[in-house]
Amino acid sequence: MDKNQESIIENNIVTALNVLKEFTATPGCGVTRFPFTEEARQACAYLKERMEAVGLTVRMDTSGAVIGRLEGKRASTIMIGSHFDSVKHGGAYDGIAGVVCAIEVARLLQESGRELEYSLEVIATNDEEGARFNTGLFTGKVLLGQLTCEELKTQVDAEGVSVYQAMEDFGLQPEQIAAHPRDDIKAFLEIHIEQGPVLEAKNKEIGIVDVIVGIKRARIKINGRADHAGTMPMHMRQDALEQAAKVISKIGDRARLFRNCVATVGFLQVEPNIMNIVPQSVTFAVDIRGVDEETIMTQYYSLLADLDRMSLESGLTYEVEHLLYAQPVQMSESIKEQLEISCINRQLEYMHLPSGAGHDAQIFGAQLPAAMLFVPSVGGRSHCPEEKSEARDLAKAVLVAYDGIVKMMDFC
Amino acid sequence: MDKNQESIIENNIVTALNVLKEFTATPGCGVTRFPFTEEARQACAYLKERMEAVGLTVRMDTSGAVIGRLEGKRASTIMIGSHFDSVKHGGAYDGIAGVVCAIEVARLLQESGRELEYSLEVIATNDEEGARFNTGLFTGKVLLGQLTCEELKTQVDAEGVSVYQAMEDFGLQPEQIAAHPRDDIKAFLEIHIEQGPVLEAKNKEIGIVDVIVGIKRARIKINGRADHAGTMPMHMRQDALEQAAKVISKIGDRARLFRNCVATVGFLQVEPNIMNIVPQSVTFAVDIRGVDEETIMTQYYSLLADLDRMSLESGLTYEVEHLLYAQPVQMSESIKEQLEISCINRQLEYMHLPSGAGHDAQIFGAQLPAAMLFVPSVGGRSHCPEEKSEARDLAKAVLVAYDGIVKMMDFC
Repeated sequence: MDKNQESIIENNIVTALNVLKEFTATPGCGVTRFPFTEEARQACAYLKERMEAVGLTVRMDTSGAVIGRLEGKRASTIMIGSHFDSVKHGGAYDGIAGVVCAIEVARLLQESGRELEYSLEVIATNDEEGARFNTGLFTGKVLLGQLTCEELKTQVDAEGVSVYQAMEDFGLQPEQIAAHPRDDIKAFLEIHIEQGPVLEAKNKEIGIVDVIVGIKRARIKINGRADHAGTMPMHMRQDALEQAAKVISKIGDRARLFRNCVATVGFLQVEPNIMNIVPQSVTFAVDIRGVDEETIMTQYYSLLADLDRMSLESGLTYEVEHLLYAQPVQMSESIKEQLEISCINRQLEYMHLPSGAGHDAQIFGAQLPAAMLFVPSVGGRSHCPEEKSEARDLAKAVLVAYDGIVKMMDFC
Repeated sequence: MDKNQESIIENNIVTALNVLKEFTATPGCGVTRFPFTEEARQACAYLKERMEAVGLTVRMDTSGAVIGRLEGKRASTIMIGSHFDSVKHGGAYDGIAGVVCAIEVARLLQESGRELEYSLEVIATNDEEGARFNTGLFTGKVLLGQLTCEELKTQVDAEGVSVYQAMEDFGLQPEQIAAHPRDDIKAFLEIHIEQGPVLEAKNKEIGIVDVIVGIKRARIKINGRADHAGTMPMHMRQDALEQAAKVISKIGDRARLFRNCVATVGFLQVEPNIMNIVPQSVTFAVDIRGVDEETIMTQYYSLLADLDRMSLESGLTYEVEHLLYAQPVQMSESIKEQLEISCINRQLEYMHLPSGAGHDAQIFGAQLPAAMLFVPSVGGRSHCPEEKSEARDLAKAVLVAYDGIVKMMDFC
């Protein structure tokens, strides 16, 4: 594939992303494209048009995903894609860049005139972010039969509209959600922006994801006693914030003991939060991520041990509320190998890395061979209007994914 | 004075406090008696009635304080009292109990038939708490000429009403505020509930305050960088909360190294405070109190040194905003001595202790001989509806204050 071919890919990507970024609820302030909204409808219509232009047969599935299909010799399907929804005030690349890249992969396959062993589907998944209903990974879960109609009725957005209602308003049939799980998917490939600083910092053009990290999230409340900050002697007070600070101050250092692991306290709330009153309670949320269950749970149980020790020494009590546990999901060794061979052949600077964020590929990867390619994020920024990846880097990912799909047609 | 006399004092105190607690903006939910309100007017009217009943000549001064006077041989005045305003949802004792006790002291003096060397004034001060205008110690400052008319115009309540406006609406003359500072006050004595647990814990019936602690307050902001909690590796993040926790976790332990010293972080705010985003900034307020300037400032500068070290090691920056510095105010040795002699003569279990909270006595004590008696607080509770002191303990304070005033008539 010559330089001219590469610049056509770049142009197509830039053209499409420039159109798609206008489908936002917050013009001038980043991309806000929640599922089942007018912006979502516009994006779907445009994606359908682009897919049809490269020769795909396009439909919208039960979940509201846009799927473009190239028939192969067999009905079994290799799927490539990412999501078209966004967070609030997000960027123009997260998710949607992977969809646009997947369309380019399909175009290259079409233009190559190859006979496809398996059918190929380009998919633009819906509600991966979960920004509207506080859920996420929606299409993947629907495709694999992991959601019930009942759940759609209980999950509601900030206005109290349920997923069920939103789907109906959008013209979808929520009652059909669990009716036809897909059992024909052979493999799933996703191109996505890194959303972190690693590839850029290491001067890499592309990343091959080894594993999508597992996540343990819990909400912890430390119960102290509100007292007058002047009249209550130090040895008689039960200061919830002092104890919380001692426990929290160890979380980051503990995470640094492990490879490819992060731990964050992003949320913390003090009650009553008044300057001259000893804090009565502190509630904070901890988010621990790692490439294997052991490193995650070792840290989590060490945190609980710290809390026990704190409670024993200070007399304060604590409560733990489990919020989430998602297992680490390994990407397919055989697909990764093919992607690596492509990187070597194309003389790309590549590296292996874990994905610290969740992606559609984790839903598929838990059940069938899946892989991800990461494209460098400028400045590591994401989920903000400044989010950006270079078109030339996205084009390289298209070429590697293309090579990978060609090989997968043989071995999957 | 016999047991019968003591029970009369107790009855009078209980009767008065039971009436006064009904003058609240939040019936059924503690006492909320802000300055220049209808509740304040009702309390003032009732206090005037009680003072007149024991033979005092009553007036309201420029600050809105109720003052009952007994003429002595000289115009110079010994003053005894406390405040009649309260915090929001406060208790029925903070401040007002000291006013009611002071009226009892005046009654005993009247009934004793003694000729007074100096005039005696019982004062119910106004806006000591500062709960409405975020100020406080109002009457004391006005009496000693520390406030200007201009300041009254700039200090406003939650509805934007200035002190100036509120005073006019109450029928006072704010323009007169700085006109006649009192130069006739010889000494000031205040009975107040402890608002802390020390007297109760040590089984004491009464406390003699040695010093009203000094306070240093500052607001500190640590500036980090918001990042994705999954994709930003630990060694590349600038987590404002992690660093804040490390600094805050040392504040309490440092305070424990000093005698009669407390340090509190009661307020803390995280931005953006989202579970899966590395905290961009943390703002917290520190309140350090101690009996001498050195212990306060040693702790404060140690905190700044911790912040410097944090900044140097982590690369995060910080800002410090000075909020308040109030010097420790020593109580009068000679008055304390007389109060102690009374406690011994009356065989009371007493102790010396510092006041960790601010009081009217600190304004007077900075310029003239002043002293305070503390009455045990049940469970150490204060600034809440559960706030309580036993009538028998308040009566004991009345007797000790009476003894003190009698002596002060001789030596002041």
